[in-house]
Amino acid sequence: MGRLTISQRAQNTPASAIRKLTPLADRAKKRGIKIYHLNIGQPDLPTPPSITRYIRNFDRQTLEYAPSQGMKEAVYAWQKFYHNKGIDLDLDDIIVTSGGSEGLLFVFFSICDPGDELLLLEPFYTSYAIIAGMGNIKIKPIKTEVETGYHLPKRELIEKAITKKTKAILLCNPNNPTGTLYTKSETQTLVEIALKHNLFIISDETYQEIVFDNQKVTPFFSFKKIRDRLIICDSVSKRFNSCGARVGSVVSKNKDVMSAILRFGQGRLSVATMEQLAVCEILRDHKAYTEKIKKIYQKRRDVVVSELKKIPGVSFQIPEGAFYIMPKIPVSDSDDFAKFLLNDFSNRHETVMIAPASGFYSSAKLGKDEIRIAYVLEEKKLKRAIELLGMGIEEYRKRERINELKN
Amino acid sequence: MGRLTISQRAQNTPASAIRKLTPLADRAKKRGIKIYHLNIGQPDLPTPPSITRYIRNFDRQTLEYAPSQGMKEAVYAWQKFYHNKGIDLDLDDIIVTSGGSEGLLFVFFSICDPGDELLLLEPFYTSYAIIAGMGNIKIKPIKTEVETGYHLPKRELIEKAITKKTKAILLCNPNNPTGTLYTKSETQTLVEIALKHNLFIISDETYQEIVFDNQKVTPFFSFKKIRDRLIICDSVSKRFNSCGARVGSVVSKNKDVMSAILRFGQGRLSVATMEQLAVCEILRDHKAYTEKIKKIYQKRRDVVVSELKKIPGVSFQIPEGAFYIMPKIPVSDSDDFAKFLLNDFSNRHETVMIAPASGFYSSAKLGKDEIRIAYVLEEKKLKRAIELLGMGIEEYRKRERINELKN
Repeated sequence: MGRLTISQRAQNTPASAIRKLTPLADRAKKRGIKIYHLNIGQPDLPTPPSITRYIRNFDRQTLEYAPSQGMKEAVYAWQKFYHNKGIDLDLDDIIVTSGGSEGLLFVFFSICDPGDELLLLEPFYTSYAIIAGMGNIKIKPIKTEVETGYHLPKRELIEKAITKKTKAILLCNPNNPTGTLYTKSETQTLVEIALKHNLFIISDETYQEIVFDNQKVTPFFSFKKIRDRLIICDSVSKRFNSCGARVGSVVSKNKDVMSAILRFGQGRLSVATMEQLAVCEILRDHKAYTEKIKKIYQKRRDVVVSELKKIPGVSFQIPEGAFYIMPKIPVSDSDDFAKFLLNDFSNRHETVMIAPASGFYSSAKLGKDEIRIAYVLEEKKLKRAIELLGMGIEEYRKRERINELKN
Repeated sequence: MGRLTISQRAQNTPASAIRKLTPLADRAKKRGIKIYHLNIGQPDLPTPPSITRYIRNFDRQTLEYAPSQGMKEAVYAWQKFYHNKGIDLDLDDIIVTSGGSEGLLFVFFSICDPGDELLLLEPFYTSYAIIAGMGNIKIKPIKTEVETGYHLPKRELIEKAITKKTKAILLCNPNNPTGTLYTKSETQTLVEIALKHNLFIISDETYQEIVFDNQKVTPFFSFKKIRDRLIICDSVSKRFNSCGARVGSVVSKNKDVMSAILRFGQGRLSVATMEQLAVCEILRDHKAYTEKIKKIYQKRRDVVVSELKKIPGVSFQIPEGAFYIMPKIPVSDSDDFAKFLLNDFSNRHETVMIAPASGFYSSAKLGKDEIRIAYVLEEKKLKRAIELLGMGIEEYRKRERINELKN
């Protein structure tokens, strides 16, 4: 019967756009090169003191399983967190997950069978494609463009992508990887489409507190008529600088969905006990902390924008939230360019790592002249990182021209 | 288009046999009833001091993501752990997972497409069925019997269950839920079957240090000719009394499998940073600790066995490892009996919670006169718990007889 083969779904699963170049970065570091990481949304800001304090005061003798739904204190804390955001929930509407990622997997699998389809705005967060691929779920991309700040295309284009197999539309607002804040009218459009075509709405609210220029997110929860079809996925990773805690939540008023997710949750037993407890205090009262980090990211956004403007041939709209920007850059293959930055480029023994945009598209041919930048460094470092990016682009283009002349 | 429906796979996913009765237990506790929990493999023993010490000394300012494969220190520690067990691995043969459960999901999905089949000895750990169901993977049960201590049936019966869709055979040795230690010759049989039919072998080694009466597990890794088809799933939960840490590992020399699992792992980003580091010290040198807990469980096993022998109509073979026993008891519906213990029975305001066996079978009709007991309480409590079980059986049978007379 030949050699042992892995599954088709495993073969089809892409490597993460954000993490696949890590081996090249490790090699560069071994060569003594300092790397500014703009490739990954790993904030440099300190985790809230209440979290680290909880951890240091940990005094249980046995590190026991938590209930599959989450520790009682944790479920209450999430309820309070949502209440403070104007979202009133019963305890049964909440399940604590191992980061936002596990929540997405549970949600995708609870509503989609193999062959079913999920509508996503493209470019999209790379993990959506990996998780969908694991479940044999098809991603149906709705392409958005750098020129319009990656805002929604015409409603007809979205509706055209819907088939009998379409189960849900997913929106991450503000968006990873583009930094776009979708307007009230855009949210409204998606609500109307979901109602007309009987779709679930999956709302990835990971970045919801990070919105700039005094703008506000229009929460899906504010549309009462979609309460039974709304599923919220969230995570403490970004707003509380706690990526390594692996705590998130799934929230829905749809009892069938929550019952399914709880049964999936029993299959994995529980989420790490300590972290779900450690984040309770900040969950119960987050505003002061998130207001502070919002301001920090807005300043960083301004630095990135003004520095990117200095690089010839780079174009973008000013991002309105999250901590990403996805500019168009004057190269023909940003995957190759990202590798070049790690393998062949440095200035004063320093270089910059970015995420090539192709990994945020459904086809590797798309996004070849775009990159994702996560502005998760302090302003001075950020300035230097974008300066390195500019130098890198210049040198890369020089090489491209030399190669063209050779051929 | 009617109401919003969840996926077929979600509808088909069973609730956990171990956790589904928790709401009844909560209600009993509210009525002031003390419950002895024999339903769940949550050990009462203290977590190793090195783990709690690490946690209390946690001094990072930011709780950062770990690499998807695991923190370097953690991967090295797992390598050492396996080395100490006679299993020599390259670093790339290891990935750290969020408990054993995530490892199982990654393994199942990396080798099975929807419709593919996994061979399992039945009764089996309930999460296998949940995780397989999530991936539309079929469980092919090989039934084993209480009368033979749940040891392997004849080789022909196993081979008969193999079809073109069969991708792997999974063994948990020593076994959850039966406590069976499979002999060298049984392991050899499975190795031969896997080679003949070109199957992967999934080895769940969660309980491997807990083996009684000076017996030893025959590790699959000792069979050189199956190295390319062997995938080991493990967890720190049981042997280190760290269920709430959610740390496990997947190990394989099959590069395609490990590459697939790493890509799945990128989709979920990482495992909780602190716990994977906290367990490093005990992973590097575990023998003194696990030898100690092995002795504790052997004594408990002896208590359970001698107490169960006192209950009329209960039959079983003496378990050889792990901390479970699955006796046959003189009731016709152990699901109903388990509920009875929580809803309608108590003695001096105490009762006992057990896992009805049907949830460990592929058909709800099977195992109706069996239960799983996890002996994870100290000896005195264990004695009282089994005493309560005996009283419960007596009272339940009385009721059954009265109901029979009524009808």
